[in-house]
Amino acid sequence: MSEYKEPLLDVAHLGRLELLTPKLDQSLWYFRDLLGMEVVATEGDSVYMRAYGDYAHSTFKLTAASQPGPGRISWRCMSPQALERRVKAIEAAGLGIGWQDGDIGRGRFYEFRDPDGHHMDLYFEEQKYRAPDALRSTLKNLPQRYTARGANVRRIDHLALCAQDVAANREFAMDLLGFRVREQVLYNHGQTEIGSWMSLGQIHHEMAYVLDVKGAHGRMHHMSFWIDNREDVLRAADILAENNIFIEAGPSKHNNSQAFYLYSYEPGGNRIEIYSGSFIVTAPDFETVTWNEEERGTGVYWGGALPESFLNYCTPNVDTPVAAENANVPVFDPV
Amino acid sequence: MSEYKEPLLDVAHLGRLELLTPKLDQSLWYFRDLLGMEVVATEGDSVYMRAYGDYAHSTFKLTAASQPGPGRISWRCMSPQALERRVKAIEAAGLGIGWQDGDIGRGRFYEFRDPDGHHMDLYFEEQKYRAPDALRSTLKNLPQRYTARGANVRRIDHLALCAQDVAANREFAMDLLGFRVREQVLYNHGQTEIGSWMSLGQIHHEMAYVLDVKGAHGRMHHMSFWIDNREDVLRAADILAENNIFIEAGPSKHNNSQAFYLYSYEPGGNRIEIYSGSFIVTAPDFETVTWNEEERGTGVYWGGALPESFLNYCTPNVDTPVAAENANVPVFDPV
Amino acid sequence: MSEYKEPLLDVAHLGRLELLTPKLDQSLWYFRDLLGMEVVATEGDSVYMRAYGDYAHSTFKLTAASQPGPGRISWRCMSPQALERRVKAIEAAGLGIGWQDGDIGRGRFYEFRDPDGHHMDLYFEEQKYRAPDALRSTLKNLPQRYTARGANVRRIDHLALCAQDVAANREFAMDLLGFRVREQVLYNHGQTEIGSWMSLGQIHHEMAYVLDVKGAHGRMHHMSFWIDNREDVLRAADILAENNIFIEAGPSKHNNSQAFYLYSYEPGGNRIEIYSGSFIVTAPDFETVTWNEEERGTGVYWGGALPESFLNYCTPNVDTPVAAENANVPVFDPV
Amino acid sequence: MSEYKEPLLDVAHLGRLELLTPKLDQSLWYFRDLLGMEVVATEGDSVYMRAYGDYAHSTFKLTAASQPGPGRISWRCMSPQALERRVKAIEAAGLGIGWQDGDIGRGRFYEFRDPDGHHMDLYFEEQKYRAPDALRSTLKNLPQRYTARGANVRRIDHLALCAQDVAANREFAMDLLGFRVREQVLYNHGQTEIGSWMSLGQIHHEMAYVLDVKGAHGRMHHMSFWIDNREDVLRAADILAENNIFIEAGPSKHNNSQAFYLYSYEPGGNRIEIYSGSFIVTAPDFETVTWNEEERGTGVYWGGALPESFLNYCTPNVDTPVAAENANVPVFDPV
Repeated sequence: MSEYKEPLLDVAHLGRLELLTPKLDQSLWYFRDLLGMEVVATEGDSVYMRAYGDYAHSTFKLTAASQPGPGRISWRCMSPQALERRVKAIEAAGLGIGWQDGDIGRGRFYEFRDPDGHHMDLYFEEQKYRAPDALRSTLKNLPQRYTARGANVRRIDHLALCAQDVAANREFAMDLLGFRVREQVLYNHGQTEIGSWMSLGQIHHEMAYVLDVKGAHGRMHHMSFWIDNREDVLRAADILAENNIFIEAGPSKHNNSQAFYLYSYEPGGNRIEIYSGSFIVTAPDFETVTWNEEERGTGVYWGGALPESFLNYCTPNVDTPVAAENANVPVFDPV
Repeated sequence: MSEYKEPLLDVAHLGRLELLTPKLDQSLWYFRDLLGMEVVATEGDSVYMRAYGDYAHSTFKLTAASQPGPGRISWRCMSPQALERRVKAIEAAGLGIGWQDGDIGRGRFYEFRDPDGHHMDLYFEEQKYRAPDALRSTLKNLPQRYTARGANVRRIDHLALCAQDVAANREFAMDLLGFRVREQVLYNHGQTEIGSWMSLGQIHHEMAYVLDVKGAHGRMHHMSFWIDNREDVLRAADILAENNIFIEAGPSKHNNSQAFYLYSYEPGGNRIEIYSGSFIVTAPDFETVTWNEEERGTGVYWGGALPESFLNYCTPNVDTPVAAENANVPVFDPV
Repeated sequence: MSEYKEPLLDVAHLGRLELLTPKLDQSLWYFRDLLGMEVVATEGDSVYMRAYGDYAHSTFKLTAASQPGPGRISWRCMSPQALERRVKAIEAAGLGIGWQDGDIGRGRFYEFRDPDGHHMDLYFEEQKYRAPDALRSTLKNLPQRYTARGANVRRIDHLALCAQDVAANREFAMDLLGFRVREQVLYNHGQTEIGSWMSLGQIHHEMAYVLDVKGAHGRMHHMSFWIDNREDVLRAADILAENNIFIEAGPSKHNNSQAFYLYSYEPGGNRIEIYSGSFIVTAPDFETVTWNEEERGTGVYWGGALPESFLNYCTPNVDTPVAAENANVPVFDPV
Repeated sequence: MSEYKEPLLDVAHLGRLELLTPKLDQSLWYFRDLLGMEVVATEGDSVYMRAYGDYAHSTFKLTAASQPGPGRISWRCMSPQALERRVKAIEAAGLGIGWQDGDIGRGRFYEFRDPDGHHMDLYFEEQKYRAPDALRSTLKNLPQRYTARGANVRRIDHLALCAQDVAANREFAMDLLGFRVREQVLYNHGQTEIGSWMSLGQIHHEMAYVLDVKGAHGRMHHMSFWIDNREDVLRAADILAENNIFIEAGPSKHNNSQAFYLYSYEPGGNRIEIYSGSFIVTAPDFETVTWNEEERGTGVYWGGALPESFLNYCTPNVDTPVAAENANVPVFDPV
């Protein structure tokens, strides 16, 4: 018992998602008017936003770019000391980029890349959001009033990144950042890691790595926003449909994560999930659930299949032929 | 910045609730047939149970006793090492009772009492639940099939204990166990701590201390079970009503915690909450939300008032006159 | 069998509600911005509106007046012939006022009063609503897009009128208009008719008469708007609370009608219900459900009580002492 | 205006569905244990059932047979006189079979066939259901307690029949029985009637005729049971999945009818729908909504497609090659 490895608890949670879009104005319309998020600040080519239930100054950053895809993903540490410890470890692993002075609403942060090349940072100092009078809620424990605009997502939840080598990236996330693996899809008798869903806390997963079927680097499958109940996901589907947003899949229920999902493409081309359900994990020694080809099925619990695009389209999109070594990779379904 | 106090993360989560009942058979009917929980084992005067979404061997223990009230409350540590650290601290504080050999489905545990006298323990070793064939789910990540029996609560969530001195017990929970305070009700210009809601992780609260308005010791206001959505809370209310269970309050929404609640009395006399909604807290430095008399209002967000019994009835019930020093305590509403 | 009385099926449904308000602008804000209704036309002191799921040109008319209360209630007949038959019957009963030339979106109509003095009309000709481009839905069978503004009620549902003599008004509605009685509250061993809930079709009730406890005439207890599910009623409560609208009762479930209700006061002072659930009645010989004092209880299925105001406040409000002959009328709860 | 054709209101509602099954025991398990219906009586090869919210003695009859498919469909008239009128009209049309003495819980009925050969009857006399003590509800207006067993469907709702000639059968239903057409799917510039959804009252549709793509006769696409809200449909999907029932499509939302649907195959092979949402139609002159190929799309409002089986499988199943005259019939999607 003395050899039990204590969990690494230095990183607290997903702090901010940055999303790149070639159509900033239309993407802004999607997140603000259809998803109901709030704009907190604008600087240069970036718009800083948050959902009504996010307590931090900003949790989502929309940045104009030539291609859609993920921007810099920010993880908040448990304390300044925890931040220092993590930075040292990342530097030692040779993946660090360096300290930056801070961003709107936040203190200094340390940039790095995961093995697949996704851009990330770690930080601790962060402003709490203070609602202006017009957005103050009648609920004292709500950072901002419920505006009832559009789908009104509550908070950022997670993201799913593509990786050429899922295992390598998962191990990085576990060893350097403290992620615990909730669920895995392993094909070929456990030899091919198709996807891993991981968390820093009790939320089911805050990050997933899924196989990049086109053998590219630094891409994203989707970003996900939480909404409090499934009825609101159904309502969100109506809102998206009324606004001619392409709904790729759902609302339906995944087997992996048990989540109730709705995937659409924001106007910039990124896949965005509106998400509810799933489950809380409290056990520090939760046993990773693994699914093989047969158990995984289509990934839809109630039957039916996810569309081809769900398995093949990621951002930035790549048209190049798949590299030979990836040609036989089986299709898979990221949650 | 170097003086930032790092959070104490040794205790992971609420591991098991024990409830005392003078009517074991009827209480069992309530929890098994109406709430839909499963019996895992029976030993002596105790029935070990769990909800369908609980991953551990057993999370709820119903024990025959002459009076209703709380039994031993168990907290699971993050690791064996974390357990040792916590035991040392509790021993040093003079609140320890001692090590015990283990219980069904669990390894050895360390017993202690909180300052108000509630019986608690800390442990780490625990069996995972393995469903028998008849209870195996078609969802690989669900520990047991969804049986669709009664209200079908998903997991244990939290408990609210009464205390003569809320501040002292809260400080104990913070300093010795690592609880973080989410919300507080402070009356008399902040001088009277009416209640404090605290958590070990990202769940809004796993334990609350609320003022014992009768000045007694070791009592409980309620235990609470999670259900995935508010529609299921409404459905649970129908089920309880059809079975002539006394519904004391709800379904409605608290301002404190934003939770959607339904309080009923199980046949043994204990107040049980069926609970959904509320919110996840991810920030390690979440700012405690404090409510004064006026802000707290009735505790019901949408208006209306909680009944007198909600403010005065706890288990075990006491009929003795309130001690003089507590006579002027204002009414309050535990969530 | 030859003596079976065939049902009178000449009147089809509630066609339009008119509501008087001393605060037209604020009332308009409530119905348009909080309830999500659409303005179709404005004429003189009246604003013509409809809910997104109403197929007719307009179903709700908000009219400026010195006092809040009900305006003219319009019932649509099954056919022109049915309209003629009903007019003859009302004329014969001495309650007719006369034909009028028509109103915005509608053909000629026949005005009359019920025995208690409420202003009503019958009509058949009516324009269908044709959405302008900006409001056209992507659902071809929806008359207007789902705008996702505020609570977004779907259609008008019913109204509850006060009457000094419930029985006389109920009989009028049955004999002259063809209403069938779904439920009744009878006190004093069946001798005091406290309320009757009636319908023209399969909707549970489209009109109720409830005892005017102040012995006045022509008053209204509430008007009611349908929303598709209970989650949306809960969401509506949040929206009203965020906008400082007084919520008088609910969300909760009545025993009578089984409806899920939320009562608030619009700024003009009228009680408005947001409503879902209840049940469809298909049998032409549905047996009226009667409730006595004990069975009726508080009118809230899950327990708790409706506030005093719910039993005593109607519009227009009257402060005059209750007439002697009504002084002993027991309190009651209109659904 | 004098030429306006008054609506035919002699038939009130769908009174009973009979379903044939080659696996009576397993079908009974599906309807009683998974859907939560109650057995009222058993006679010969038939089991008489009802849903908890059905007020009549029995509304569903499960009958052992060599093949799955529809049994006799019963329509209840508005009055004895209305029954006589309808019988005369059907006799005059040459589709009558004759009077029968009655069935369990019902008086005499008149048998007939629709043009496609489906077996139907008309009746008026019917026993109300009287719950035994153990099934009496605490809600006086509920015919039976809410048992919370399985999906707990509330009432029968509608059925969809196949027909070689949809137009002929629809006209029969309109002219002889008084159905009003809510929605239609017309292909080939309006020349091919793919399906028509019709109602006798305010329920969106109680019967649909859809094209029999295999050119057979007397077959059924599905029968449908109502549940009060969409959350309960999602819950029903979990229950079916946990019991290894094949879910063919849904939960999702049709564009036609706006209904929230869940289609599964009961063990006997019949397609059964669990259904909620849709909308109430009150206008006597509701304008039939017509959809062409493009507008109809996949029939799923939020995107995605219904599976091939949904378009091709009906009961009884036929393997014979499609007759030449039906060979070019486009696929379609019955709601």
